[in-house]
Amino acid sequence: MSETTQTIVTAAVVVIGNEILSGRTQDINIAYLAKGLTEIGIRLKEVRIVADEEDAIVAAVNACRTAYTYVFTTGGIGPTHDDITAPSVAKAFGLPLALDPEARRRLEKHYKNPSDLNDMRLRMAHVPQGARLIDNPISQAPGFAIGNVHVLAGVPRIMQAMFDGIRHDLKGGAPMLSRSVGAYLPEGIMADPLARVQERFPEVEIGSYPFFRQGRLGSSLVARGVDANILGKAVDALCDLVKGLGGEPMVDADQPSLGPFLSASGQEK
Amino acid sequence: MSETTQTIVTAAVVVIGNEILSGRTQDINIAYLAKGLTEIGIRLKEVRIVADEEDAIVAAVNACRTAYTYVFTTGGIGPTHDDITAPSVAKAFGLPLALDPEARRRLEKHYKNPSDLNDMRLRMAHVPQGARLIDNPISQAPGFAIGNVHVLAGVPRIMQAMFDGIRHDLKGGAPMLSRSVGAYLPEGIMADPLARVQERFPEVEIGSYPFFRQGRLGSSLVARGVDANILGKAVDALCDLVKGLGGEPMVDADQPSLGPFLSASGQEK
Repeated sequence: MSETTQTIVTAAVVVIGNEILSGRTQDINIAYLAKGLTEIGIRLKEVRIVADEEDAIVAAVNACRTAYTYVFTTGGIGPTHDDITAPSVAKAFGLPLALDPEARRRLEKHYKNPSDLNDMRLRMAHVPQGARLIDNPISQAPGFAIGNVHVLAGVPRIMQAMFDGIRHDLKGGAPMLSRSVGAYLPEGIMADPLARVQERFPEVEIGSYPFFRQGRLGSSLVARGVDANILGKAVDALCDLVKGLGGEPMVDADQPSLGPFLSASGQEK
Repeated sequence: MSETTQTIVTAAVVVIGNEILSGRTQDINIAYLAKGLTEIGIRLKEVRIVADEEDAIVAAVNACRTAYTYVFTTGGIGPTHDDITAPSVAKAFGLPLALDPEARRRLEKHYKNPSDLNDMRLRMAHVPQGARLIDNPISQAPGFAIGNVHVLAGVPRIMQAMFDGIRHDLKGGAPMLSRSVGAYLPEGIMADPLARVQERFPEVEIGSYPFFRQGRLGSSLVARGVDANILGKAVDALCDLVKGLGGEPMVDADQPSLGPFLSASGQEK
């Protein structure tokens, strides 16, 4: 057994995006952050998607930064008038918005021709006073972190690069391990014994998700917890449950990092 | 001009889903609801994704039902122990959870063999006292509405069928019309004149979204508003803006229902 701390580290994501709320754009940033945070032992507990409106951003950022260890925002840090995340986050912290000389230097380098760095583009070099810059290896205009709030771009490729650049600086707690047991059995006939498995393993969070595959109805029983040993016992109990109902358990690990736990019969995915 | 009321009707979506927060599942329900609500003149103003925990569900439902005209929840209405949406919504309203005879009848009909309707499946017939059932044409177990809160399934196919069944009963306000002007120009050089167009048309909400297509950088300028005439003028101004910078505006309607506005040169999507 590797040593794990039992500290619970939590996070919230605040998506700033009229384009998500109008249905124009399908968000894919939440799932990327959810996976990335889970991998480093940070539990994403809440997501809020709010409009490009100062009051809404301030309220969401302030609610989340006091309730969770980390907050990540996506969107609203470009050069146009509707990009109001930086001033809104500054307001949430009661800080002035200030031109960051290093951010300006990066933009100057990026645009080369001085006249290209117009006033609107220069907005992208303004951050709440005292914020640390977050590198943007794609288009240079940086994100920033202030307190426990990390402000990332909304364009997925840039958001991902920014998050990948800071993830090693985030302090995770005990990593949440995840395993799953699939079966071609309906949830309804497993529900009662499943509740009893959950009672036997209170440290393990057990979820049940129906699926249709090749015209057949089945369920994925997903077990999550920080102790691999206890998790293994819960998975054994889930397999016994499936077998007891005449099914064939398909054991898999939801996370590639759990390679050693992969069963040879694992076909669930 | 067709007559439109200027009433603003708003909505929030509360997604109940550990599987979304862990990154295991990519949510597609939010975009479906966002599009559907927009089509009937309801503005989705906020989304919260919360864990399968009673306190979190109660807090999100209560915050949203007092702030918005409608609330839609997705997920957590199946037969297993982790499906706690119905009791949590009952708690949010301070109502007892009660067996609904009609819901029970539907489940009895669906399962045919009486022994198949076990106690856990019967949980799906329990709703907050006084709730109205929402039909589930796929697997019968109904959703429900209590006050302004509509409780839908999490499985996309079922959620969609439930929403499509109730959408004609929802009272929308002035429909939000949406049009877009695309151009192979970076946001940064359009940002200043764009802010001036926004100032000229305060009734129109103008957003700018960068894109990469066929190796070229461009921007979509999206204009949204309730008055087709004013929106048309804003689109004209956006086209002039693009032409003034040497670009070629690509005009399109984001919504298929805006057929008459579709430009022959519309290639933006």
